[in-house]
Amino acid sequence: MTKNQPTAALIVIGNEILSGRTQDLNINYIAKQLSDIGVKFVEVSIIADIEQKIIDMAQEFSDKYDYVFTTGGIGPTHDDITTESIAKAFNKKIVQNEDALALLNEFYNGELNPGRLKMTKLPEDAKIIRNPISLAPGFIVENVYVMAGIPNVMQAMFDGLKYSLKGGDPVKTVEVTIIVSESKIASPLTELQNKYPDVEIGSYPFVRDNRIGTNIVLRCSDADLLEQAKNDLQPIVDLGE
Amino acid sequence: MTKNQPTAALIVIGNEILSGRTQDLNINYIAKQLSDIGVKFVEVSIIADIEQKIIDMAQEFSDKYDYVFTTGGIGPTHDDITTESIAKAFNKKIVQNEDALALLNEFYNGELNPGRLKMTKLPEDAKIIRNPISLAPGFIVENVYVMAGIPNVMQAMFDGLKYSLKGGDPVKTVEVTIIVSESKIASPLTELQNKYPDVEIGSYPFVRDNRIGTNIVLRCSDADLLEQAKNDLQPIVDLGE
Repeated sequence: MTKNQPTAALIVIGNEILSGRTQDLNINYIAKQLSDIGVKFVEVSIIADIEQKIIDMAQEFSDKYDYVFTTGGIGPTHDDITTESIAKAFNKKIVQNEDALALLNEFYNGELNPGRLKMTKLPEDAKIIRNPISLAPGFIVENVYVMAGIPNVMQAMFDGLKYSLKGGDPVKTVEVTIIVSESKIASPLTELQNKYPDVEIGSYPFVRDNRIGTNIVLRCSDADLLEQAKNDLQPIVDLGE
Repeated sequence: MTKNQPTAALIVIGNEILSGRTQDLNINYIAKQLSDIGVKFVEVSIIADIEQKIIDMAQEFSDKYDYVFTTGGIGPTHDDITTESIAKAFNKKIVQNEDALALLNEFYNGELNPGRLKMTKLPEDAKIIRNPISLAPGFIVENVYVMAGIPNVMQAMFDGLKYSLKGGDPVKTVEVTIIVSESKIASPLTELQNKYPDVEIGSYPFVRDNRIGTNIVLRCSDADLLEQAKNDLQPIVDLGE
């Protein structure tokens, strides 16, 4: 358990993920970035491009967590319904966003066709999230951060906003790989977890070259406590080959 | 929209996904397999290893969807709480499962330490899901299919149970790549979607070698309808370079 950490959740809006067409890469990126700045990433929901679904999840997560991120569905085409859904979730009108208009006008030298214009219409009072790769801008409504779905665009957006998030104590990690099956270390590992309830202890089996092994991961924001737990882990490590 | 398709959802139980330590590969695998057999994959929830969270999600998804899959948390260690949580979600006791015991006894030549024994204790009336890679067996309770988190083990489990699922009409896909920005084709694409409400039309922008392009994906279980929509897509394709 790690205290003093704001919480975050992610809504992945993407038929292309659920159809199997696309391997999601955004979840892992966001997970690592949030861990860096001490924000606890507690839940992800992957849903189809259905307005009511987006509204429901945005409201639920916005109530429950400090930060909510969304990826996908903010482009110019008919299947991009995230902006309108988020506006409805928070009872906001869609209006011309002057910051977004200025940015796109500059990039496209004033040649804004209806598709591009659509991307400058955002929920009222939304703050834009800059997109250095220069497609649709993202935006912030209340505690919801709406980002693009294309990984390099999403990452550029996230990198820009990352340090505006209020982080907590960053979590430190100790990871040890042992060539021993999980079942042989289950009991002493349980004892270790009971001794250190504030250290999150994970055990992840793997099979490699026909050998069964286990990765043990200790996570805690208190470096001293983590060091103690690591010392007490040694007898378990010694059970491995 | 595709009719006559059973629905499915997945619960990924995994602190290691949320911490960023591990890139999930199971969602995409399951998505592709379900698409193959005509089961509509509608939602994924990634949650931490917290009992109440697992219980709540399992109950919610079990009520809403025809099939529910879970990955992760069925090993022998203290952080493997999926089996107990699923038992609680459906008011089942954990009992010795004779099929699981026989399988593990055979594999381990009767050397079942407490960790291995734990993996043979399953919710009452659970049907086991065979695991040819021979770690913890998975199991089925009501419409919930509980599988391992390690990708190659999960895949082997899924491959074994796949054809026991009642599928629907498989979805056929047409995918076209055009070198044109989404915003330029947004209007005709909206018209195409309006003309073919039963064809799911997705538009996915990309940036490659400094060129902006769009993948257009048509999905439908009715091959004739898909063919018609594809023909009507041609004028849009011709807008590209």
